[in-house]
Amino acid sequence: MVNVGIVGVGLVGSELIAQLVAHGASRNLRIVALSSSKKMHLSNEQYTGITSDWRQAVDSGEPSDLGRLASYLAAGKDHGVVIDCTSSDSVAELYPSWLKQGLSIVTPNKKGFSGDLNLYKSIVELSRSANGPFAYHESTVGAGLPVLATLTDLVKTGDKVTKIEGIFSGTLSYIFNNFSSLSSSEPKNFSEIVSVAKELGYTEPDPRDDLNGMDVARKVTICARAIGLPATLETLAVENIVPSALQTVASASEFLDRLPEFDAHFAELNGEALKEKQVLRYVGVVDPQGGSGVKLVKYPASHPFASLQGSDNIIKFTTERFPNGLIIQGAGAGAAVTAFGIFSDLIKVQERVHV
Amino acid sequence: MVNVGIVGVGLVGSELIAQLVAHGASRNLRIVALSSSKKMHLSNEQYTGITSDWRQAVDSGEPSDLGRLASYLAAGKDHGVVIDCTSSDSVAELYPSWLKQGLSIVTPNKKGFSGDLNLYKSIVELSRSANGPFAYHESTVGAGLPVLATLTDLVKTGDKVTKIEGIFSGTLSYIFNNFSSLSSSEPKNFSEIVSVAKELGYTEPDPRDDLNGMDVARKVTICARAIGLPATLETLAVENIVPSALQTVASASEFLDRLPEFDAHFAELNGEALKEKQVLRYVGVVDPQGGSGVKLVKYPASHPFASLQGSDNIIKFTTERFPNGLIIQGAGAGAAVTAFGIFSDLIKVQERVHV
Repeated sequence: MVNVGIVGVGLVGSELIAQLVAHGASRNLRIVALSSSKKMHLSNEQYTGITSDWRQAVDSGEPSDLGRLASYLAAGKDHGVVIDCTSSDSVAELYPSWLKQGLSIVTPNKKGFSGDLNLYKSIVELSRSANGPFAYHESTVGAGLPVLATLTDLVKTGDKVTKIEGIFSGTLSYIFNNFSSLSSSEPKNFSEIVSVAKELGYTEPDPRDDLNGMDVARKVTICARAIGLPATLETLAVENIVPSALQTVASASEFLDRLPEFDAHFAELNGEALKEKQVLRYVGVVDPQGGSGVKLVKYPASHPFASLQGSDNIIKFTTERFPNGLIIQGAGAGAAVTAFGIFSDLIKVQERVHV
Repeated sequence: MVNVGIVGVGLVGSELIAQLVAHGASRNLRIVALSSSKKMHLSNEQYTGITSDWRQAVDSGEPSDLGRLASYLAAGKDHGVVIDCTSSDSVAELYPSWLKQGLSIVTPNKKGFSGDLNLYKSIVELSRSANGPFAYHESTVGAGLPVLATLTDLVKTGDKVTKIEGIFSGTLSYIFNNFSSLSSSEPKNFSEIVSVAKELGYTEPDPRDDLNGMDVARKVTICARAIGLPATLETLAVENIVPSALQTVASASEFLDRLPEFDAHFAELNGEALKEKQVLRYVGVVDPQGGSGVKLVKYPASHPFASLQGSDNIIKFTTERFPNGLIIQGAGAGAAVTAFGIFSDLIKVQERVHV
């Protein structure tokens, strides 16, 4: 058995619990600890699995104490894994202490893998042993798409990655797939598409948190570090496509109200691309020779990025062994696919601890 | 350490040896046995790694005896893995005996996983234990592309695969990407493209061995079995696109000489597709509801299969969690990427035996 503790029981955490309740037992995975931001519930000394009524158990539980949750997992005779389903910096800072207690980490939280480089190095160092504990974070990039697993395989087997290029944000994928297309008759206004994306729930509460490129920058940083580059958010060239006059307006609603003033600006950029039979895409690039960054790029119709649909992510690795690229494409956001990525990582841990 | 024995030292085997000599030591992988179809070389009782002059060691070795090779690997204190780089049925039939001796299997050989269903079941059964031995065969489909690893993750985590559709053959990818395109001015003759593909070394010595669909059928069978279907080559509907009059001609050269007689036939099929603004692609399909097979299918320009280039493979999984598809694309043939897939599998074994 593997004892699983889940920190963060929002959309992704709840979906993960549902997937584990349905399919975890056959993989010897047992949820024994759950924590929301306020309350937590630990199972008993026999580490009995928590399955039904978990929500009520958490809501009526003791005050959340992640130190105690980790000690509880570490005290079990079975291997313990903490799954961080928050997006919190302060939870990520706890990973080294958890790894030191022998607990594996699985997480979709980007903070520990894209923030402070020393924290990242410490996580890597403490999860290096063949006997565990392990740290997996597939779902930080492209949700459940096998992006980091594939990158890791390429690196471990000695391939040389010469470029990683991708549309890493479902939100920006949706926006530019709809805004910049060679097949649509009449281009829509940029502001209109952003508003629809927000209504569909595709954007952050303030869409500027998508358009400023920082979410993509974190994913680029994670990919860069996965191939051994000492990348940091601070050194990455990030093209913030929020018009500068709107970067400082106070509220999301004021931003959306005023965005139409800049429709002509975006239409001009788009028009230039379309005139060359190209489309605009907002991409993240890892280039070991320099030039890593997040930016608007033009692609011809024949390029796989040009025919992307919906809110799919697409990531292309160019390597010595794959000079024409290895491409992975599909839904890169949403609770079901994010939880799938976490669950897959959890099975990798389970398989490596031989249970 | 993991002791590695390689059976088959042709193109793929040699490339794998090169990759392991360059990058295997840091992963605790050590080649200790090599066999060609005639000769073999086993290292000493200390299982010293074979690195340089391996070719000469094999050529001047003892007569090949795979039983003895397996016993030698099994007698070591370190975990042993046999890598079957042949395409032989008779080698695949040995897997159960090797697994029973505690040896893991890694292979790009499709025979054991697409042939006799009882052999397949026996391999699966004998490699089921959490402590090993293990059997990995990523490179049987799409070479090093993460096709089976991803399918396995989907299945293990309880996702429901509703369809697998792909261009599984580099040869047929090249032929139809060049034959059926919405952007090219004047379609080339089918026979001409097949001849060029043969000259480039993309086809089997007799191109009918590609065009008859059996290679794709094997890959479809492997994918179907990976999601739990009891598929066999015999029950699969395979569209053999070799004109029936040419299926029985004696030699490859006679086939190529006479293929131009059927250019009008292929041009007509292509013309019908292009008139509908679609292209022809030769695909393999796994459909759990029935309808699995290998066939010519028409796709509109916006479909990812339509814009494929070169000899890339592309495989699309449609599942409950990925209703719009998870797509993997890239080189699916060639020694470097096939060896990469084997090497990645080998690292999975190494990680699971904790060394």
